Amino acid sequence: MKIGMIGLGRMGRNMALRLLRKGHEVVAFNRTAEKTHEIMEEGAEGSFSLGELAGKLPAPRVVWLMLPAGKVVDEQIEALKEHLRPGDIIVEGGNSHYRDDIRRAQALQGAGIRYVDAGVSGGIWGLEVGYCTMVGGAAADVAYLQPVLAALAPERGYLHCGPTGAGHYVKMIHNGIEYGMMEAYGEGFALLEASPYRDSLDYAAVAALWNRGSVIRSWLLELLENAFAEDGRLEKIRGHVEDSGEGRWTVDEAVANGVSAPVIALALFQRFQSRAPDSFANRVLAALRREFGGHAVKKAR
Amino acid sequence: MKIGMIGLGRMGRNMALRLLRKGHEVVAFNRTAEKTHEIMEEGAEGSFSLGELAGKLPAPRVVWLMLPAGKVVDEQIEALKEHLRPGDIIVEGGNSHYRDDIRRAQALQGAGIRYVDAGVSGGIWGLEVGYCTMVGGAAADVAYLQPVLAALAPERGYLHCGPTGAGHYVKMIHNGIEYGMMEAYGEGFALLEASPYRDSLDYAAVAALWNRGSVIRSWLLELLENAFAEDGRLEKIRGHVEDSGEGRWTVDEAVANGVSAPVIALALFQRFQSRAPDSFANRVLAALRREFGGHAVKKAR
Repeated sequence: MKIGMIGLGRMGRNMALRLLRKGHEVVAFNRTAEKTHEIMEEGAEGSFSLGELAGKLPAPRVVWLMLPAGKVVDEQIEALKEHLRPGDIIVEGGNSHYRDDIRRAQALQGAGIRYVDAGVSGGIWGLEVGYCTMVGGAAADVAYLQPVLAALAPERGYLHCGPTGAGHYVKMIHNGIEYGMMEAYGEGFALLEASPYRDSLDYAAVAALWNRGSVIRSWLLELLENAFAEDGRLEKIRGHVEDSGEGRWTVDEAVANGVSAPVIALALFQRFQSRAPDSFANRVLAALRREFGGHAVKKAR
Repeated sequence: MKIGMIGLGRMGRNMALRLLRKGHEVVAFNRTAEKTHEIMEEGAEGSFSLGELAGKLPAPRVVWLMLPAGKVVDEQIEALKEHLRPGDIIVEGGNSHYRDDIRRAQALQGAGIRYVDAGVSGGIWGLEVGYCTMVGGAAADVAYLQPVLAALAPERGYLHCGPTGAGHYVKMIHNGIEYGMMEAYGEGFALLEASPYRDSLDYAAVAALWNRGSVIRSWLLELLENAFAEDGRLEKIRGHVEDSGEGRWTVDEAVANGVSAPVIALALFQRFQSRAPDSFANRVLAALRREFGGHAVKKAR
């Protein structure tokens, strides 16, 4: 299949490379031309305008967007729309909110342009092992994309989850679960680090051990094995943890649907807390302890 | 190596079988003789008293205990002690608290009997894939046990974690992490079940998908894949979740050492809550809402 790929960041570039290696043709476009030239050296066809991109694709066109979530995606779709024809398919592979998927699919409907949402997991390892891909949209459109999805994913590694938005919804929940799992591992190692056995423990060895036959073996724990092997006490890393949106959306959904998801919510709040160790809440507590018990407070630095 | 195995429950029996298959000799003992007879048919030597067990083992004797945690272990060690000699090694492979390990090792020291603690993970799959084994004790004793540990574990699947108690300590933290991970998966699927995409989602397919290249792939998720394949909406299972001690101990350690482990603690409390859905706390809340706002309460059944 010949498809267009818009956005050649780490994810888009590697996905294009994987498609090329699996025998597909890729017409690449990127905001800055430099990355387009780079991927042309790897066998992609380059394009330097959306018109050129559309012109180089056979109908019905398939254009895969791999852009940072948010306004950029809407702007790109708006611009791209002018160059597409009824029956063409836009695949939004970034981290869009499922409600944005529904809105965009509806907005494109009048022009007969189809919209498929794809939540993609696998990070920088996807190029090698394949991208786990969660897909939402009309069954016929997802069926049409089958060769591309099969090339991107590991064996049986993509799923049509349901109508528009379902792919990003399932990806969002996937990320929420990831927050909880990561926090559980973090707390476990923190408990070891505070334990009476601290000095005899090699965390890379513990992570490696747990990955061999234990109940908590996982890919995340394999990544931790690597991290501890490089830096046994993580002394080169600050405990400042960012979040990139899906955790917040997961908690929003829990609230909207009245579902209790306390561990996922708490894992998200722990990330917020990690960025504000001298938090206002803690200053309120310290102030109150001084007020009612005369407990000493530490001066602000 | 020829070792004694006391306790032929699901774990002890399968561990004895694995040792036999790997070419070791096992002298088995169980409180009820029936299980001893059963394992004799699989190639183990039987014994029907602790004296007989000790008599059938070469010095220094290695006796592996695989009993339910608690008083039984202490009673068995007390009785066994009479039949052991200086240099013999007791391996406690059950789910003992690390403080009990330290106490027992000290109590046996006078008689010259060595004590090694082994935290064993792998459940009913261990027979096939091997038991991930976390070991605490003196280096010389652990080295002496090497052939047995290597036979029980998968390749590189056992680790000498530190002095007495370290094996069960690391196993305890392992279980704490497991609580957090399980709760994260549980909440994630609960969010899907309450989502607008509920009707199009096949949870066995979602779990299978996430296990193929996604960031949250894990052995627990493979188990969920099986569970959903058998019962797509888990309609045959009540949401009543027991705990078997290590989660509580993990939280005790967090409190004792002043370490924040909120997700593990919350995952434990969620299990308590699962057994008391009509909890006293919730009745207090309902009563208060009636008092201050006249909100209707539901009558107790």
